[in-house]
Amino acid sequence: MKYYLGIDLGGTNIKAGITDETGTILYKNAVRTLGQRPAEEIAKDMIDLCRFICRNAEIPLEQVEAVGIGIPGTVDEKKGTIVYANNLHMDGFPIGAVIGKALGKPVYLSNDANCAALGEFVNGSGKNYDSIVMVTLGTGVGGGIILKGKLWGGLDGSAAEIGHMVLKAGGEACSCGRTGCWEAYSSATALIRDTVRAMKKHPESLLNTIQPDLKKVSAKTAFLGLAKGDAVAKEVVEQYLYYLSEGIANIINTLAPDAVILGGGVCNEGDTLLRPLRELVYPKCYGGETVRHPDLKIASMGNDAGIVGAAMLWNS
Amino acid sequence: MKYYLGIDLGGTNIKAGITDETGTILYKNAVRTLGQRPAEEIAKDMIDLCRFICRNAEIPLEQVEAVGIGIPGTVDEKKGTIVYANNLHMDGFPIGAVIGKALGKPVYLSNDANCAALGEFVNGSGKNYDSIVMVTLGTGVGGGIILKGKLWGGLDGSAAEIGHMVLKAGGEACSCGRTGCWEAYSSATALIRDTVRAMKKHPESLLNTIQPDLKKVSAKTAFLGLAKGDAVAKEVVEQYLYYLSEGIANIINTLAPDAVILGGGVCNEGDTLLRPLRELVYPKCYGGETVRHPDLKIASMGNDAGIVGAAMLWNS
Repeated sequence: MKYYLGIDLGGTNIKAGITDETGTILYKNAVRTLGQRPAEEIAKDMIDLCRFICRNAEIPLEQVEAVGIGIPGTVDEKKGTIVYANNLHMDGFPIGAVIGKALGKPVYLSNDANCAALGEFVNGSGKNYDSIVMVTLGTGVGGGIILKGKLWGGLDGSAAEIGHMVLKAGGEACSCGRTGCWEAYSSATALIRDTVRAMKKHPESLLNTIQPDLKKVSAKTAFLGLAKGDAVAKEVVEQYLYYLSEGIANIINTLAPDAVILGGGVCNEGDTLLRPLRELVYPKCYGGETVRHPDLKIASMGNDAGIVGAAMLWNS
Repeated sequence: MKYYLGIDLGGTNIKAGITDETGTILYKNAVRTLGQRPAEEIAKDMIDLCRFICRNAEIPLEQVEAVGIGIPGTVDEKKGTIVYANNLHMDGFPIGAVIGKALGKPVYLSNDANCAALGEFVNGSGKNYDSIVMVTLGTGVGGGIILKGKLWGGLDGSAAEIGHMVLKAGGEACSCGRTGCWEAYSSATALIRDTVRAMKKHPESLLNTIQPDLKKVSAKTAFLGLAKGDAVAKEVVEQYLYYLSEGIANIINTLAPDAVILGGGVCNEGDTLLRPLRELVYPKCYGGETVRHPDLKIASMGNDAGIVGAAMLWNS
């Protein structure tokens, strides 16, 4: 049997696991990242976590074929370095070489959104498809593209920044400097912004009772209001779904994958999100009813997707 | 030596040529499509044209390995049928089987934008790249995606409808039913619409002298006005370039190909189009100056691209 280590380096936690060659996690664990520390210290904790995991899984490190790491930022896959990671102080750090040397294994890097997509493709909602696009609705809108079973990285791994596809030129400002990016409408951050705006504009809305503290408004707030029949909440959710459907339809018209998989906290809404979304997305797909459309699903693996995807990078 | 026949079935002309295995056209010719005729008659002319070409090229049909056809619409590549072609009466016609049987060759189908992209990839501006996206600025905005040397067709060949990526939700109406599609801003049709609008709004503009007949305004008119220093024309061109750059940046942020190749009549403007476009596009690419950006080029093969791409479909 062959084994693989997958590390999901997050801004808050370092999660890691050991998998078999089918991408099934046999054992996993996590430690705090404490991201303000020097890169060397974080790398040392990653190495220690890998050794710890092998011990607890009772699998000798010798039987591990490769290590994969998902990075919350841009990486140079060939050089094995972190190019830029917002929440860490590791820019330029040769993490591939450092961890590869310590563990004596080949190390594969990719960004965390790619790893999540690969994880869902191998063992989650993307299983049994040939090509998927995963869209993660979190603080930002992340993307991972799998075509014919392989991650599509594009030029220097810079592809799949689908959150920075403009769908309303001249619209909301995005952190990337453009206006009207998908991320500026469909991230949890954007949903919170729009919920707060609506609450300020409509003091009579039930939303202000559901969450009297504007600073505590979350991506759930509007959906809670919707469930209680609040008209303002309904409008917020409908606008959110509208832009989300525009972005998904754009992805479909461009790439026509077999499936679009949605991940991130907003997807906890399940069918409340998915059912109206399908009705909005499909009529926007080019060719209308004359062509088959990609399946639209919610990710099923949660945090494990990043670990499994990292562990399976050797094969992508 | 192996030979291939490529047919570019257009609404106006059927163009075809015979190529060697490098995609070099050895001989080509064309006949009128007369697209209102029954599908069988058009297919017969395509077959006759192929035979005629072989004779004039002095290459026996026996030495032809395969035939490729570019269709101005959607096709079912597997079944070899035309699904929908706007300017022809051939929907549902089994063109692959009919032509394959008559010539005794395997027949490959794809849409015309894909064929143009493949042609430019094999022997034009896309040569020497691994992955390109071709954007054709014509009556509509067409697209062709080549990834790692192969056409990316997506689910049932429905990918690469990049003209129907919305970049201004709620904006100009598009023929596809959505609003704010790239095509509704960056097609020649859209440029003409905006030129005419500006001429009506600004009777004092030089544009009204350059082309006094609003019905004769073309995609060139605004560029002619710009060359003569007309402020209204400058505004029209600047807005056109703005939306064009938004769409190209969206493609780059999604796919990060090695190059984006622009084709279609608007590209006759050459550097007047390309130089400002590069300055607009690159700052919009995610990662800014920290990452390499795709090359941005104008297609070099004109109408031959469609023939060569069709002839090379067997290998894609």
